Amino acid sequence: MLPQKVVDAIHSVVGSGPVGLHEPSFEGNEWLYIKECLDSTFVSSVGKFVDRFEDDLACYTGAKYAIAVVNGTAALHIALKLAGVQQGDEVLIPTLTFVATANAVTYCGAEPHFVDSEEKNLGIDPYTLREYLNNISEICNKQCVNKKTGKIIRAIVPMHTFGHPVDIEGLLSVARDFHLVLIEDAAESLGSTVNGRHTGTFGLMGALSFNGNKTITTGGGGAILTNDPNLAKKLKHLTTTAKVPHQWEYVHDEIGYNYRMPNLNAALGCAQLEALPKILKQKRELFNRYQKVFSMLDGISLIKEPENCTSNYWLQTLLLDISQSNQRDQILEVTNEAGYMTRPVWNPVHNLIPFKDCPRMELTGALSLSQCLINIPSSSGLVGAIL
Amino acid sequence: MLPQKVVDAIHSVVGSGPVGLHEPSFEGNEWLYIKECLDSTFVSSVGKFVDRFEDDLACYTGAKYAIAVVNGTAALHIALKLAGVQQGDEVLIPTLTFVATANAVTYCGAEPHFVDSEEKNLGIDPYTLREYLNNISEICNKQCVNKKTGKIIRAIVPMHTFGHPVDIEGLLSVARDFHLVLIEDAAESLGSTVNGRHTGTFGLMGALSFNGNKTITTGGGGAILTNDPNLAKKLKHLTTTAKVPHQWEYVHDEIGYNYRMPNLNAALGCAQLEALPKILKQKRELFNRYQKVFSMLDGISLIKEPENCTSNYWLQTLLLDISQSNQRDQILEVTNEAGYMTRPVWNPVHNLIPFKDCPRMELTGALSLSQCLINIPSSSGLVGAIL
Repeated sequence: MLPQKVVDAIHSVVGSGPVGLHEPSFEGNEWLYIKECLDSTFVSSVGKFVDRFEDDLACYTGAKYAIAVVNGTAALHIALKLAGVQQGDEVLIPTLTFVATANAVTYCGAEPHFVDSEEKNLGIDPYTLREYLNNISEICNKQCVNKKTGKIIRAIVPMHTFGHPVDIEGLLSVARDFHLVLIEDAAESLGSTVNGRHTGTFGLMGALSFNGNKTITTGGGGAILTNDPNLAKKLKHLTTTAKVPHQWEYVHDEIGYNYRMPNLNAALGCAQLEALPKILKQKRELFNRYQKVFSMLDGISLIKEPENCTSNYWLQTLLLDISQSNQRDQILEVTNEAGYMTRPVWNPVHNLIPFKDCPRMELTGALSLSQCLINIPSSSGLVGAIL
Repeated sequence: MLPQKVVDAIHSVVGSGPVGLHEPSFEGNEWLYIKECLDSTFVSSVGKFVDRFEDDLACYTGAKYAIAVVNGTAALHIALKLAGVQQGDEVLIPTLTFVATANAVTYCGAEPHFVDSEEKNLGIDPYTLREYLNNISEICNKQCVNKKTGKIIRAIVPMHTFGHPVDIEGLLSVARDFHLVLIEDAAESLGSTVNGRHTGTFGLMGALSFNGNKTITTGGGGAILTNDPNLAKKLKHLTTTAKVPHQWEYVHDEIGYNYRMPNLNAALGCAQLEALPKILKQKRELFNRYQKVFSMLDGISLIKEPENCTSNYWLQTLLLDISQSNQRDQILEVTNEAGYMTRPVWNPVHNLIPFKDCPRMELTGALSLSQCLINIPSSSGLVGAIL
């Protein structure tokens, strides 16, 4: 019954299938800039589009600096590294996230410490977190130590799930009180703001992603935002093999990474960033259209942007009442069969084999959410041209 | 005197400057395929060009499998990881290489163990290496143990410098006798062969690079070659976040990496690979033209492909007689001032701060070479259209 109603509701908004979950939209200068990039032959590590993309990103987000990298995972890795995360540390991350967040922690030799998520914004609840840290940690020498493992909890990486901003100001306050570095995982939230300020600019650093399924894409790509000029310099240095500038000498003064974004991909990014305001309008309109039909169904609702926040509505997300969660798989099956690509939220990361022994708090909120969330077709192109 | 003669010789071959060191050539289907990729909207992790690029690479090199990744550093990292390199191991690498080789070793938690290079092919000499390993190592439980450090020497990563094949068969024999996994760093040698067999296909795995300065480019990119079907499967899995295939479930069964090559970059690669035979012809012709003029100069010579080998002549390389090495910097200065981009070989990696305490053999050959080698303009386009 409900599954068929969901199919009908989606159909009434997006028409007949097949319809993908999220397809990019190239309606601006994408071809022009990429052709210009090819014609210049500067497709790789040198070229004007990387600089321009970084400047445009900083301008758009209001961050003082943006450093373009090869993807969102690389952005998180380097941000954590420069946050001082090292061998033997723990890093607080939501269990309800894409696996990249946890992987990036392990690349630093550290271990994820999993935190619950709440229904309100699908992210970490500062009040629950504060209570948890009060119980399990103690502050020694201005460091937060896990009393059980004896390890330093160095950082926290809240994520803005599907573009909906987490309670970032509440989390900043917890981070300050417990001496945690806060790195924002803004991979999904380009265009999302909290009280008018762009997500990814609240923490010491913020990580963006421009993967093909994101609001805008560079093919593969990511960026790190920061307001700290020294960090910006170090981020650029570490992501470009730590080479010390010289006309011809090869001096690398630390162990660096080959994480720079190629100019070809940045050319695509420059055009996509120009189109972002229009894409955001279309995505909001798609939410409004879905909202009209789903608000008439019982047992299911559409996730709306939190108060005082603007969401980019990256992925439109249905929330099943807990009483209906046993219908989730049936809904996934019939919608996909009907040609509407839908999918559940990620498997909570603490359940994955490589992370099953990592420290964690009680994760009842995330486990419940993981049974109740369904992403539905979200491409900006689904609403056509809007005024 | 010699510096001006070098300027004149370069001028006589490539005409008036400014001339870069190595610029890519886009004269085939580059724009066509990239346009097709953009038109399809599949610019990222899904799309036909990645599969095609991998098939075309396997076909061209004769490797059974090719896995496209985000760059050559990523290729080396994952190859070393799947070779079993782990925390506390040592890995033999030439000190005369780009820093990426050493960095990739450290990403596995291992330490580079630096090996000398010989003048003949600018790579590791198997005879010297065998003698060295006989002295410093012992075989315990079929593992090569460094008697001084007590650590396992797990692997060796010979490199085909500037496209000139190393004595790979000699090194394979040493690797076999000392129970070392051999990973070929073929980042510079696409198109180079040894007895007709493509470099990168001799070792358990081989790493390629398609950075913008390489013989062909994908903007940023790399690939891993292997003949082992199980390794090929694991390489694909590890480089694509270790996700277990499912229509919608997110299961990742190990700590993976976001190292896949975007479809946009693979589209460029497909066109570049089509052009490779022509580019190789042009680069050989450029060598012949340089050879004519430099063979008339005393105190300096052009590096030629080793016997029984075909070199791709990626970077044309001058070798100063040791008696002339004090003129190296002067040559670099006057050529660059005259608008011809030239540069020395890499600073030997064991001299860089992050690697200064790593184990090493006597490195007299590499140190001497590092004072005597100069790369000169090498773009295929410098010879124009040839018959």
